[in-house]
Amino acid sequence: MADLRSDTVTRPTAGMREAMATAAVGDDVFGDDPTVNALENHVAALFGHEAALFAPSGTMANQIALQLVVPPGGELLCGADAHVVTYELGAAAVLGGISTRTWPSDGAALDVDRIAAMVRPAGYPSVPTAAIAVEQTHNLGGGGVVSLSVLRDLRAVADAHGLALHCDGARIWHAHVADGVPLAEYGGLFDTLSVCLSKGLGAPVGSLVIGSHEKIARARLLRKRMGGGMRQVGILAAAGRYALDHHVRRLAEDHERAQRLAEALAPYGVVDPAQVRTNLVPLDLSKSTVDAPTLAAEAAKREVLIAAMLPRTARLVTHLDLDDAAVDHAIAVLSELLS
Amino acid sequence: MADLRSDTVTRPTAGMREAMATAAVGDDVFGDDPTVNALENHVAALFGHEAALFAPSGTMANQIALQLVVPPGGELLCGADAHVVTYELGAAAVLGGISTRTWPSDGAALDVDRIAAMVRPAGYPSVPTAAIAVEQTHNLGGGGVVSLSVLRDLRAVADAHGLALHCDGARIWHAHVADGVPLAEYGGLFDTLSVCLSKGLGAPVGSLVIGSHEKIARARLLRKRMGGGMRQVGILAAAGRYALDHHVRRLAEDHERAQRLAEALAPYGVVDPAQVRTNLVPLDLSKSTVDAPTLAAEAAKREVLIAAMLPRTARLVTHLDLDDAAVDHAIAVLSELLS
Amino acid sequence: MADLRSDTVTRPTAGMREAMATAAVGDDVFGDDPTVNALENHVAALFGHEAALFAPSGTMANQIALQLVVPPGGELLCGADAHVVTYELGAAAVLGGISTRTWPSDGAALDVDRIAAMVRPAGYPSVPTAAIAVEQTHNLGGGGVVSLSVLRDLRAVADAHGLALHCDGARIWHAHVADGVPLAEYGGLFDTLSVCLSKGLGAPVGSLVIGSHEKIARARLLRKRMGGGMRQVGILAAAGRYALDHHVRRLAEDHERAQRLAEALAPYGVVDPAQVRTNLVPLDLSKSTVDAPTLAAEAAKREVLIAAMLPRTARLVTHLDLDDAAVDHAIAVLSELLS
Amino acid sequence: MADLRSDTVTRPTAGMREAMATAAVGDDVFGDDPTVNALENHVAALFGHEAALFAPSGTMANQIALQLVVPPGGELLCGADAHVVTYELGAAAVLGGISTRTWPSDGAALDVDRIAAMVRPAGYPSVPTAAIAVEQTHNLGGGGVVSLSVLRDLRAVADAHGLALHCDGARIWHAHVADGVPLAEYGGLFDTLSVCLSKGLGAPVGSLVIGSHEKIARARLLRKRMGGGMRQVGILAAAGRYALDHHVRRLAEDHERAQRLAEALAPYGVVDPAQVRTNLVPLDLSKSTVDAPTLAAEAAKREVLIAAMLPRTARLVTHLDLDDAAVDHAIAVLSELLS
Repeated sequence: MADLRSDTVTRPTAGMREAMATAAVGDDVFGDDPTVNALENHVAALFGHEAALFAPSGTMANQIALQLVVPPGGELLCGADAHVVTYELGAAAVLGGISTRTWPSDGAALDVDRIAAMVRPAGYPSVPTAAIAVEQTHNLGGGGVVSLSVLRDLRAVADAHGLALHCDGARIWHAHVADGVPLAEYGGLFDTLSVCLSKGLGAPVGSLVIGSHEKIARARLLRKRMGGGMRQVGILAAAGRYALDHHVRRLAEDHERAQRLAEALAPYGVVDPAQVRTNLVPLDLSKSTVDAPTLAAEAAKREVLIAAMLPRTARLVTHLDLDDAAVDHAIAVLSELLS
Repeated sequence: MADLRSDTVTRPTAGMREAMATAAVGDDVFGDDPTVNALENHVAALFGHEAALFAPSGTMANQIALQLVVPPGGELLCGADAHVVTYELGAAAVLGGISTRTWPSDGAALDVDRIAAMVRPAGYPSVPTAAIAVEQTHNLGGGGVVSLSVLRDLRAVADAHGLALHCDGARIWHAHVADGVPLAEYGGLFDTLSVCLSKGLGAPVGSLVIGSHEKIARARLLRKRMGGGMRQVGILAAAGRYALDHHVRRLAEDHERAQRLAEALAPYGVVDPAQVRTNLVPLDLSKSTVDAPTLAAEAAKREVLIAAMLPRTARLVTHLDLDDAAVDHAIAVLSELLS
Repeated sequence: MADLRSDTVTRPTAGMREAMATAAVGDDVFGDDPTVNALENHVAALFGHEAALFAPSGTMANQIALQLVVPPGGELLCGADAHVVTYELGAAAVLGGISTRTWPSDGAALDVDRIAAMVRPAGYPSVPTAAIAVEQTHNLGGGGVVSLSVLRDLRAVADAHGLALHCDGARIWHAHVADGVPLAEYGGLFDTLSVCLSKGLGAPVGSLVIGSHEKIARARLLRKRMGGGMRQVGILAAAGRYALDHHVRRLAEDHERAQRLAEALAPYGVVDPAQVRTNLVPLDLSKSTVDAPTLAAEAAKREVLIAAMLPRTARLVTHLDLDDAAVDHAIAVLSELLS
Repeated sequence: MADLRSDTVTRPTAGMREAMATAAVGDDVFGDDPTVNALENHVAALFGHEAALFAPSGTMANQIALQLVVPPGGELLCGADAHVVTYELGAAAVLGGISTRTWPSDGAALDVDRIAAMVRPAGYPSVPTAAIAVEQTHNLGGGGVVSLSVLRDLRAVADAHGLALHCDGARIWHAHVADGVPLAEYGGLFDTLSVCLSKGLGAPVGSLVIGSHEKIARARLLRKRMGGGMRQVGILAAAGRYALDHHVRRLAEDHERAQRLAEALAPYGVVDPAQVRTNLVPLDLSKSTVDAPTLAAEAAKREVLIAAMLPRTARLVTHLDLDDAAVDHAIAVLSELLS
C-alpha cells in the first residue's frame, strides 16, 4: 500500500522507538519532564526564541499562538486557504473569539501590498487588526515556500502597524531545506511560530508553540484550558527530538520524489511541476473527467491512497515511509486513472 | 452645521415625534406591544417573509441573523469590507463563534464565481460553509447597489451548496429606490435580512431581522441573551413606522444631492461620480495631500462634519436633515480643503 | 385587567410622554445626544461614580458590567438564583466566556462567610475568582433588601481578595426607599452597578451601567459589539430622566400595596408577609393544589395577570400602573383560586 | 523523594514501556491506529457503552463530553468544587459557552433533592438546565465515593427532567475497587463519562470520552477543533491498555496506604480517617499553625512533595510509584511539621 494521503501517516522508526522506550520522563503539567523541557529549549533555540511549549497537535499549537497574539474581539488576517481558518474547524472563532478577514488564496505567493491594505488601524470605528498569520510551507498552496524577501516585507508591514506576525510552520522544515534559510532566520521574523514534529519529520505526535518567555507562560494556561496538558509526555518528546536530529536533512529526498510524481502526472494537465517545491503535489482536477473522491476511491482499490481535499482537488504527499518503489506504483496507478 | 458624517444623525421630524407621542404601547418582552407587533408584521410583509423582530441596532439585527444561519464553529463568507466583519467589533466571532472567510473588497460589484469557489462543502476535512452575507447597498463600497441579476446568481450558488443567504439591508431602501426593485423581490432572495429604520429613513432608533416564523422565534431568544429585549418600545416602533410610510420615496432627493457632491469634488481626483449610485460619497484620499482625519478636522472648523473611515478614506452621506444649502456649504468647504 | 406580572408592564405617563416629545436629541453613537449625556452624568452622580452608559436593557447593562470586571476564562461568584445566571439565557458564558460558581439561593440574606469561602485565589491551579455579583433588591429572593452591613462585609471580602463587586441594581431604587440608604452610599460599595429605568420607575426602556471613566469607555465598545449602540435615543433617556425625577419616592406606595397583597394571601400558606419588603410578592405553591402555570392561566381568565416563574413559584408585582382597585381585584381573584 | 502531589506523577513501568515499544500504530486522525481503536472499543465495552474516544487529557475528555450534552447557552449543574468548574480554567464557558450553576461543595455526599430543586425546566423565562455532572471519585471531596444508590437517585432526577448526566470518572477505577461496583453498572447510569489512564492507573498520558456512536462521532469533530487529534498515538494507547490490564486491582494497595497516612496524621486534627475512602488524603489546615504553601515548601526540603490546593488545603495522593517506605517517610516528615 502506497499511502500518499499525508506525511502524518508515517510510523516511528526503530531508532525513534528506541528513543521513546528509554526516555526519562516526569509530570509535564508540573514542569517535571526532563525530555520535554529539553525539547522545548532545543526548539526555542533552533528558532532563536526564548521559549517553546509542547502541544498534542498542530491545531492546538496554532490556536494557542493565535490566542497569544489576538485578544477576543480582535482580528487576524490570513489567507482564505490557510490551515488556521479552513482545517481547524472554526477554532479561532469558537475558542478564541478571534475575527478573521482573509486575502484570496494565493498559496506562497503572498501579495504583501494587498495584505497591508487590509489592515484596520486602531482609532477607527472598525475592529482593529491584531495579527497576520502565514503558512510556511503552504499546505493548500501546494507546499509552496514563502520567500525570505516576502517574509521580510511582511514583517515590515507588521511593524509599521504594530501587529504581531504568526507563522504556521507545520512544514517549515521543508522550507528550510528547499530554500536553505536557517531556522533562526525564519524565527527572527515572527512573534510566534508553531512547528510540527509529526508531519514531515515522522514523529508520532507533537507540535510546539514558540515565542517569548512571557508568551509561553501564558500559553501554558491556554494549553491547560484547551485540554493539552499531558503528563509523562516525554515519551513523545523523545520521538520528536529524534526526528529533529535525524529527519530534517532527508526531507530533500521527499522533495525529489514529489518532483518526480509531478513530472509524471504533468502530461494529464493536473499539476505544474514548476509549482512543486517541497513534498506536496496538489492535483487540480477541475478539467479532469474524474473528481477527487472518485480518483481517491479508485486509487485505493489499487493500493494507492491519496487525499481528496475538495471536490476537484486531490493531494499527494511524499514522506519518510514512502520509498521509490511506492512512488513508482503511485505514478503507474494515477497515470492510468487520469488518462 | 452641515453634518455629512452619516445618515444616522437625523433628528425625528415633527410628524415622527407626534407618532411617538401618541403610540399605543405594551411590554414587548411579553409580546404585548401593539405598535411593535404591527411594525414587525408590516416589515415582514413588505419583504414577503413570515415574520420580523425589532432590534435596537443594525449590529444586533445582523448578528442575530448570522447566529440564525451559522452554528458556532460554522463559517460565513462575506466581503472583506462588509459591515458585519469590520464595523461590528468582532461580534460574529465573540458572540456567535462564527468563523469568517472574506472575498476581496469589491463593493457592490460581486464576483459570484469567486464567491462560489470559496465555498467549503460538507464532507471534507475543512470547516463547512454555512452562509453567505451581502450588503445592500454597500457601505464601504460607496453605497453601490448589487444588481438583481447578481443577487439571483448568488441565490443559485447558495441553493447549489445548501447555504443560507443573509442580506445586511441597512440601506436596502436606497437600492429599492435607485434600481426600482420591489422590496419583496429582494426579500424572496434571502433567508434572512436586516433592515434599518434609523439610517436613511430617519427614525431615531431601530432595525429589524426578517425571516421565517421558526427563525424569528429563535431570534427572540438570541435577542434576549444579547440584551436587546426592550419593554414599551412601541414608542420607537411608531417612529419607524412613520419613517417607512413617509421617508422611503424621498430618498431619491438624497441620491441627487450625493450625485451633486460627487460631481463637485470629482475635479480633485477623490471620487468618481459614476460610482455614486445612492446617498454615500466615498472620498479616496490616497493621492491627496491631506489624510482623512485632517480633512475631517479642518472641515469641522468650517462647520462641515464628515467621517474619517480609514486613514485615507473619508465619507460624505446625504440624508433627511441635509438640504441643498448644507450641501452647497459642504461643497465649498471641501473644495477649498482639497484644492 | 390587573397586570401583576412585572413592573416592566407600566406604560409611560402623560408627563413622561411630554418629556419624550420635546427631548433634544443627537446621534448617541457619536456621543452627540445631549439628553443621553445628561442622564448618564446625572445617574453617575447619584451613585457617586464617575460615569455611566445607557443600555437598551438590564440584561445588557449587567452583561457589559460583568465583562468589565471578569476576563474571558475568569470566574464570577453569584447566587444560584441571581438574574445574571438564570434569566439572561447564559449570556455570561456565551458572550463573555465567564465561568460562574453559585452559592445556594438565599435571596437577600447573604451568608458572607460562605461566599468568602468560595473564592479561589490566584496562584493555585484553579480558575481565579475575579468578581462577585449581588442583586439589590433580590428578584427571585422576593424583592428582599440586602442590608447595608451585609454589603459592607461583602466589600471587605472583595477587598481582601482583590475582587470586583458588581451590583445588579435593577430595583435598587426600592432598596433605597425601603431602607432609606442613600444611593451614593450603595454606589460607593461597588465597582460597577446596573440600574433600570423601565421596571419600578416606569420608563418605557433603558438601563445604565455605572463605573469609572476607564470602565465606561470600555463599556462603550462592549455595548457596540453587543448591538446596544443606539442613535437618537435621547427620546428614551428623556423618559428615564422624568422617571428618576418623579417616580422614586412614590415606590413606597407600591411597597404598601405589595404588603397588602401578602397579608391577604398569607392565610393560604403561600407567602410570609414579613418577607415582603418591597414591590415583589413571591407565591410559594409547593404545598398548594394548584401549580404556577395553572394559577396564572385561571387568574388570567378573571382579568388578573401574574407570572409563573417556576412550576411551583408565581410572582406578583406592584407598580406605577396598579392602583388600589386593581390590587383589591387581584386579592379577590387569587383568594378564590387558592382556597 | 516521596512524591505525594498527585497520582499523575507515576512513571511508566518496564512492562508498560515494552507495550509502547512494540505497539502497532497508524494515523488516528484518519481512524487508522489499531491500538487506539482497540483501546476505545475495550473501554466502551467495559462501561457498557457503544463507543469511546481517546483524548490527551482529562480536561479535554470532560470538556468534549460537556459540549456533547450542553449546547452553547445551555446550563450545567455541578458541585462548586467540581473539577470541571474549578480546575479546567473556565473551559466550559470559554470553549463551550456553557453556563454553570453549582451546589455547595459536599464532596461525594450528594444531596440529590437539593440538586433536583436547582433544575430550571424548559418553558420558563430562565436558561434551561441541560445536564448534571458528578465526579467519581470526588477529587476536592477527598477521594470520596458516590454511592450507587445516590447515583441511581440522580439518574431518576435526570430522567424526570430530560437532562443528561455526565460522570467525570477520572478516578472511577478507585470507586470500582473501593465499592466493588462493576464498571458497566456505573456506565449504565450516565450519558457520557470521562475516564483517565494517567492518574491512578499509571499510564503516561490519556483519557477517554465514552458515549453513544452518535455522540462519539460528534466528539471526534470537537476533539479536532480543540486540538486533540493526534497521529500515531497508539504508542500512548498501548500504555493505557497495559494499565487497564494490570493496574486496576492493585489500587487497593493505594487505598490502604492512604488510610495509613490518614490515621497517622489524624492526631494533628487535619484529617478524619473515616472520610478517606480511596487514594486521596485531604489535609484541612484551617486550624493549623502552618498554611498549605508553607507546609508544602517545608516538606519539599525534606524530600516529601505534597500539593497545596488552596491556602488552607493540602492534598496527599498515593499511587503506583509510592511504596511503603515512601509513605513512612512522608508520615515522619509531615508529623514533625504539623506538630
